[in-house]
Formats: sequence, C-alpha cells, structure tokens
Amino acid sequence: MTANSSSQLWIYDTTLRDGTQREGLSVSIEDKLRIARRLDRLGIPFIEGGWPGANPKDVQFFWHLQEEPLTQAEIVAFCFTRRPNKIASEDPMIQAILAAGTRWVTIVGKSWDLQVTEGLKTTLAENLAMIQDTIDYLRSQGRRVIYDAEHWFDGYKHNRDYALQTLETAIASGAEWITLCDTNGGVLPHEITETVQAVNSHLSFVMSQKPMTNDKEQRTIPLLGIHAHNDSDTAVANTIAAVMAGAKMVQGTINGYGERCGNANLCSLIPNLQLKLGYQCLEDRKISHITETSRFVSEVVNLAPDEHAPFVGRSAFAHKGGLHVSAVERNPLTYEHIQPEKIGNRRRIVISEQSGVSNVLAKARTFGIELDKNNPKTGQILQRLKVLENEGYQFEAAEASFELLMREALGNRQSFFEVKGFQVHCDLVQGEETTSALATVKVAVSGRDILEVAEGNGPVAALDAALRKALVNFYPQIASFELTDYKVRILNGHTGTAAKTRVLVESGNGHQRWTTVGVSTNILAASYQAVVEGLEYGLLLHSQAEVALMS
Amino acid sequence: MTANSSSQLWIYDTTLRDGTQREGLSVSIEDKLRIARRLDRLGIPFIEGGWPGANPKDVQFFWHLQEEPLTQAEIVAFCFTRRPNKIASEDPMIQAILAAGTRWVTIVGKSWDLQVTEGLKTTLAENLAMIQDTIDYLRSQGRRVIYDAEHWFDGYKHNRDYALQTLETAIASGAEWITLCDTNGGVLPHEITETVQAVNSHLSFVMSQKPMTNDKEQRTIPLLGIHAHNDSDTAVANTIAAVMAGAKMVQGTINGYGERCGNANLCSLIPNLQLKLGYQCLEDRKISHITETSRFVSEVVNLAPDEHAPFVGRSAFAHKGGLHVSAVERNPLTYEHIQPEKIGNRRRIVISEQSGVSNVLAKARTFGIELDKNNPKTGQILQRLKVLENEGYQFEAAEASFELLMREALGNRQSFFEVKGFQVHCDLVQGEETTSALATVKVAVSGRDILEVAEGNGPVAALDAALRKALVNFYPQIASFELTDYKVRILNGHTGTAAKTRVLVESGNGHQRWTTVGVSTNILAASYQAVVEGLEYGLLLHSQAEVALMS
Repeated sequence: MTANSSSQLWIYDTTLRDGTQREGLSVSIEDKLRIARRLDRLGIPFIEGGWPGANPKDVQFFWHLQEEPLTQAEIVAFCFTRRPNKIASEDPMIQAILAAGTRWVTIVGKSWDLQVTEGLKTTLAENLAMIQDTIDYLRSQGRRVIYDAEHWFDGYKHNRDYALQTLETAIASGAEWITLCDTNGGVLPHEITETVQAVNSHLSFVMSQKPMTNDKEQRTIPLLGIHAHNDSDTAVANTIAAVMAGAKMVQGTINGYGERCGNANLCSLIPNLQLKLGYQCLEDRKISHITETSRFVSEVVNLAPDEHAPFVGRSAFAHKGGLHVSAVERNPLTYEHIQPEKIGNRRRIVISEQSGVSNVLAKARTFGIELDKNNPKTGQILQRLKVLENEGYQFEAAEASFELLMREALGNRQSFFEVKGFQVHCDLVQGEETTSALATVKVAVSGRDILEVAEGNGPVAALDAALRKALVNFYPQIASFELTDYKVRILNGHTGTAAKTRVLVESGNGHQRWTTVGVSTNILAASYQAVVEGLEYGLLLHSQAEVALMS
Repeated sequence: MTANSSSQLWIYDTTLRDGTQREGLSVSIEDKLRIARRLDRLGIPFIEGGWPGANPKDVQFFWHLQEEPLTQAEIVAFCFTRRPNKIASEDPMIQAILAAGTRWVTIVGKSWDLQVTEGLKTTLAENLAMIQDTIDYLRSQGRRVIYDAEHWFDGYKHNRDYALQTLETAIASGAEWITLCDTNGGVLPHEITETVQAVNSHLSFVMSQKPMTNDKEQRTIPLLGIHAHNDSDTAVANTIAAVMAGAKMVQGTINGYGERCGNANLCSLIPNLQLKLGYQCLEDRKISHITETSRFVSEVVNLAPDEHAPFVGRSAFAHKGGLHVSAVERNPLTYEHIQPEKIGNRRRIVISEQSGVSNVLAKARTFGIELDKNNPKTGQILQRLKVLENEGYQFEAAEASFELLMREALGNRQSFFEVKGFQVHCDLVQGEETTSALATVKVAVSGRDILEVAEGNGPVAALDAALRKALVNFYPQIASFELTDYKVRILNGHTGTAAKTRVLVESGNGHQRWTTVGVSTNILAASYQAVVEGLEYGLLLHSQAEVALMS
C-alpha cells in the first residue's frame, strides 16, 4: 500500500470504534460484522474494528474476522500506548491488540504536554518512551503501525517542540502513518492548513537530516493522516483543508457518527474529495454505493437516517415548487451541485412525489431481479412501491420482502399458506416476575384452516411460535428456520405512541439469511407481517433449492 | 448602521424565510412572530421575515409587526427583482414588498448568465435592467436595499464579466449591501476565499475609477455579505472563509434549517466567529442565550432538536467513562473546545456502562441532589445502576428514570400512584383495515384501586390512554402531558423475537421534556414501564414547581 499517484487518498473508517462512542448508539458483534463486510465491499482500504483491550465485544469481533476474513480491506485494531512505567510486552492491552491478529494496528499517543502531566500524571520523557516502546514492540511482532497523535492541534499550539518530538519518536520507531487528530474538534480550517503544512515541512527537514535509528523497512517520511471531530461544525472542511495541505489518509465515520457532535462524515468527504476535487478515494464504480451504505449503516445501528444529510439524505436533492422543478428538469446544473445518481441518491420532487420507472429498474437490479422498462409490470411495481414507501415501508434492508413484492407483481409469487388473522393477549401483574403472552393464529394451507395457539415471553415470540406450530406439519423444513434478528423503528416518532412502526425481521436457515419488513401503527401487526413474510421467503428458498437439485 | 470597527459583523437571520423551505417544517404567523421577537431579544440586527408577494401568510406577518414593531432589529422583506419586460412600480410583488412597510428590503437577482437565458428566458441586458429598475424604484420609495446575488459563485465561475456587471449595476442603483449567495451549496471554502477576495478588490478598483451615476446617499463601496447552503457539508466553514476574506454580513438560520441540507447554521457560526476568531456578532452578554434560542426555535417549529448539534446540542459537551470524567472535571480544557456555559449549554456526564462513582456524583449535582462520595448510598446507586445496565437499561438518554432511581435509593421518591398490572388484547383479521388494541390497567391512588380500560390504534397507545384515564381525576395536570417521542431498541437482537426490548419514551408538558426507559422481553411490558415513569416524572416536576411557587 504505497502512494501510486499524488491524488490517491486512503480512507480510514472508524465507524466501528470512534463512531460507536456516539451517545445512544450501541451495536452487537453481528451488527459490527455486517457493517465491516459492507465497508469492505465498498472498497474502504482501512477499517478500524475496535479496541480489543478495552472491550470484550471487540475481542470476539476480531476472532470472527480471523475465521472469516474480509476480502480486501485491512481490518485495524486500536489501542493506546503502553501504560506509564510498565513494559509493553507485559501490558494486557498490548497483548489484546496482538491477539486480534490484524496486520495493521493503530496506536494512539499523547501529543499535548498538559495531557501527559495532568491526564497521565507522568513525565514528558516517559510519554516518549511509551510511544517508542509500544511501536517497537508491535513492529517486532510483525505489525504495521499507524500512529494517531491525540490532541495534536492543541498540543502543537501549546508546546510545539514537544508535540513534534512525539511524532519524530513514532516515526523513528517505525510508524508508517502519522494521523493528526483534532480530538476536541475545536480547530478551524485555516489553522489546519497552516499546521499540516508546517508539520509536513518540519518532518521532511528532520528526516532528511538524520539517518534512521534502526533498519526497519519504511519510507523516509511517513504519510500524514487527518482525524477531525465536528464540534465546530467544520469537520468536513477541516479534513479537506488537511488533504489540500498534503494529508493522504482521511479518517472518518459513516454518517459522521461519533462522540459529542460526531466525527468527520465520510459520506460527505468522499464525494467532495473525489467528485469535486479530483482525489481518488474509492474505485469510480463504487462511489455510487455511498448512499445505500449510509442507509444500511443507519438501519443496522438502528438510528433514523438524517434526511437532510448532505449528499446522501433523502432531502439532499429534493425540489419544491413547480417553476423550480421544471427548471431543474431542463437543466439540473442550475439547482444541483452534483448529479445525485453519481453517489446513488436521487432527485426528489417534493410536492408531486414523482419518481421514475428507472428507479424501480435500478432497485430491481440492486436486488438481482431482471426487469425491462418496456414490461408493463414495471409501472405497476413502481405504483405499488410508491404507495408502500409512502406508508413507511423501506426496502433498502429488506430484500426478501422486495423480492416477494416483485414476484407478486410478475405473477410468480408461490402460495405456501394464507394468513387469516391473529389474536394476542398479554397479562402483567405487578410484582410477579413473568409476563405471559398468548397468541392465537389462523392460517390456511391447501384450503384447510389451521388454528393454533402458543405462549411466549413476549407477544412477538408467542406469535412466531404459534405460526411455526401451525405450519410445521405441512412444511417440516420450518423447524430449521430461526429468527436471527428483530429491529423496530418508530416512524414520525414525535407523534408518540400513535406513531407508525416499522419492523425488520432477519431469518435464517443455517446457511442463508434474509430480511423482511412490516409496517403498521400496531407494533404487533407490523411484527406479524414481517414474521409471516420471513417464513414465506424461507419456504421459497427451500423450494428453489429443491428445484435446483432436481434439474 | 456603519462599520464601527473592522471586527464588527452583521448577522442576518433568514430562519423565517429560507429556513421555512426545509422539508417538513411549517409555521403559523404566531410561530413566526414568536421567533422574530426572540431573535430581536438575542440582538440579531437583521431578521428576514418573509416574501410578502409570494405568500399571504407573510403579508399578514409584516402587518402584525407594523402594529407591534420589534425593539431593535431591522425586519427585512424579501423579493425578486421585477419580472422581465415589466415596469417595477407596476409589479405586484414589488408593491407587496412596499406594503410590508419595512425600512430595509432584500432584492434577489440573477448573477449567472445561464439562469438568465435558460431560467428567466430573457436577455442578459434585460436582467441588468431588472436589477437597476427594481432597486431604483425601491430607493425612490425610501427603502434601503440589500442585494442578494443568487447563484453568485456559479455565475462567477461561468461568466465572470457578466456576474460582476450585475453587482456593479446593483451598487450603482444604490444597494448598500451585496450578498454573495451559494444557492446550490456546492462551493468549498478555498473557492469562497479566492472569490470573495477577488470581488472585493474588483469592486474597490471599479468604484475608485468611476463617479457615482447618481447622487443617492451611499458609501463608496458597499459591504459584502455571504449566504451559504450546506449541500457540501461546509456551510459554516464557507461562511467563515468569506468573513476572513472580508465579508461583513453573515446570513444564516437558527439550527441551520433550510431547503435540502439547510443553510449556514447561526448557532455554530456565532460562537465560532465571536468566541474563537474575535469578531463581534452579538453583545457579549447575549451570546450565552444561543443554546436556549436554538431549542426555543426547534420547539416552536415542532422539530426534535438535533442532540448532536455543535455547540448547542445536548450531546455537544457530553462525556462518557470514569477516567475521562475525572480528567474533564480537573481540567475542562483538555476535553472541551470552549466552555459550554459561554453559549448557555452545559457539560453532561453520561451515565453508561463505563460509569464510576465520579459520574454518579456529577450526575446527582446536575439534578440538584446532594450526594457525597462518602455517603454509603452512592455506592448502592452505582451498584444498582450496574445491575440495571447489565439487564439492558440505558440511562444515557433517560435522565428522568435515572433521577427516579436516585430518589428511590435516597428514600425521597414521592409516591403519586402505584401500578398493579395491565392486560392487553389485540385482534387482527386479515383483510380488515383496522386492528383493534384494548388495554386494561389497574393502579392504586391513595390506597384506592382504579380499574380502567381504553382502546388505541396500537397496544402502547391503548395502554397510555388507559393510564391517563385512570389518573386524570386525581391529577388533572396529566391532561397537559403528552407523549412526544417513542423509541424501541431490541437488545441482543440475534436471539430474534425472544430478545429483550428497551423502550425510551419522551414526554412533555408544553415547556419541559423528559425521557424515561423500560426494559423487558415483552415489548408491551417495557413500554408500559416507560410510560408509567414518564407520567410519574411529570407529576414530580409539577409538584416541584408548586413548591417553588409557594416558597
């Protein structure tokens, strides 16, 4: 991984580490794995996976990736330098980062004298030793090192000489990248420009003066990176300023998730850098997946997407008013700063809500369904899709439901069973530990009505159990299906409990997984619908596999 | 209103005009008046009130302000230049702007040749005449004029000479301010810097060369303003770049509301410009009202405040983790880019898994609860917190529930009512549109059991309705409470429908909002718990307010 051209940048995603510091965001190991694989597919070269020493969840996350590695991206483990007055090889955090088994590690160290003396309560010299020992040791264990200079801009402002010494120490120990971090997010773009230029020329000068202190394989001057936070509302501009001043690595997160006001938003940075400024971040053909990646990540972490987010938001290319709309259709340039299709977003006409056939075709393509624009069914699917999306359905993360919808319109949706209705009864007596939930379902299979009842520790579990009980005699393969994930999103949340609910259910059969969606003002009705479609899709997959076996 | 020092800036708020273009935002005349008066109190010098010709609501808004004027601010009416090939004095839009009765008017005109020929379908010369006639006429009617150069940066890029001619025309006609608008929001900070500098020196040169074409009273070179949109996620940085290049008027909106991705956010700009860069925007004593103004405006327009907004967001100065918390309390500088109090925000200690005793103590202080680290209750609270968090509770966003927990441990949790249990019954018949949900609750107030039943369009709405019905006779203030937000998160989602559910409920009483949490494997039990605590906390606030009133 070396710079093959001056316009090449390396994107370093830290959604899974710094992004999860966002208040209210919490992810499971499975969530993290899904996000990592999606970022890998997008072509992000560095994905910071977590801090294995600090967090048992992150330890397991890296184990999973050792068993099933990513295809292209480097997964990076993150850690602080060793503790003061300890030995690196004996520091449990450092052992944990080695156990993560990644090729690359990111080590964060203190740049600001005040942080060393006040925060760590140690000496400036010891901090340098901590940086050196940690990197030396990790290099001796075969790791390649990215050095994150925490509080860089504050440190540089307060004690320039010392701050530069920390970088020189990291470089001498073999760090291949130096990331300048604006940890508090307080710096403005013009300060970034000045500082990055100054650091670049200082390091060039220093490195040209002194020979390497050891013979580790490395480039003479390590490349600089930038890590910005959005506390001043300028994280994107700060990052761009750093890149224009020579930084080659761009750290950030999907949707700008992160502590306090968030990190630099990669969904804004990548289009700005690649489409406007001519830098190379992703393969050109991949950049059109930015919008779906943004929405995928927000679905997985279960946060409502920011509709007004630059580039990827639902309103980012929304136009109001007739005159404006016809003008934009005549010449989009006059009202759009870039073509929305380039990043996989689309123009939206707010009042007339007109969306094109090309949308459905594009959507079908992303789900692998062949559909032609001259097929009259295409228009019908479009109509149905618009009605459903208006009701709150969303198919970005519910491919199975979308396929069922397509099959319905194309007349090849197989009928495995017919649902007739359900009843749920819940009972809670305060002080008693258990709440019982009882569900009754009625389904018809081959013209025969089946009535079944089951209990569960919640109403949705009871519904699921009753449905399986009703169907398993007809479709024994249902015994191998399992509900692997269940997500609830309240739409238009500020109308309180009267709001609509969207439920996403992920199901599996041991070797495949699929996701279905349900929407209703009644959370149980929405859940039921998603569970029913999950079972139906599992049966569809099973029958397709049987057909494939016979042919 | 003249520049009395080189660091003086004029803030021009367009929340009431451009801000209302945001998708999903709509305001009544009363809302607009409330916001205008609040901005006036904050000391914003220019408040753009609306476009009276385009909008009957805006006509009435200006009439109201004629009857009861603002105290300090200039209220500004907005309008396009006259239509092509018409006479300014006969254009109904121009008459409407005069009828608004403001001292200042903002006239927007085309700078981009393509917009003139493609959009307006007229000649470049006619566009200049439209600018000239409109400003001439308004000046003759005693108005002072701000000229907004629409699509300035695109126009300047495509046809520099023509773009500059439009400005020269506006100046010659007597415009006192020239605002450079990035209408599509596509420009990046370095382009702003170059362009603003170039315009400034061009205009200085031109104005020094030619005598005024008429004898209207005006300064030789009008002052420049900047109007930025956030489509590139750099509106704040773009505005700062323009100011550093010489712009003296800063246009923007509260909370960055605006079409598509919004306008430049004044809540970020004012602190950056005044506290970090030394410009004068507001009186020093007024800047601490920024946070409450931000929240006030979001309440009035009924949009959830962005908790992660820079400077004014609830999470903007939030700290997690015990070590981190004690460090920030020792030396806030190390983890905060400015003092939150300066802008009326506050540091928040987030209660989370990583909490230590210092978090609990810090949190207690913010609730006005006296707690000492030597108090044995402190350890008990921390213990209870860890047990609950292990069960899936999360108090980061549910401070009301945390306060109830503290009061419980300290023995001063007031008992307003006692919950005994609930029953919920849901029924869905496939094909019928409605699903009915019926809830029965049993609560005890002052030793008396109350049994109530209610319906809802979902089970949680039914539970909420039944609880209110049971309590409103005892606590009539409950009628003013409302459920303002409802969030559901499935914990350990991969166990499917058997997973635990965490519900967050936000409640309000018209002037305060609070959040409570419930956790259970049964989503209805979790919702019930959060709704119950929401009602209890509302009653607590009400009784505290009564005590305060009596003392």
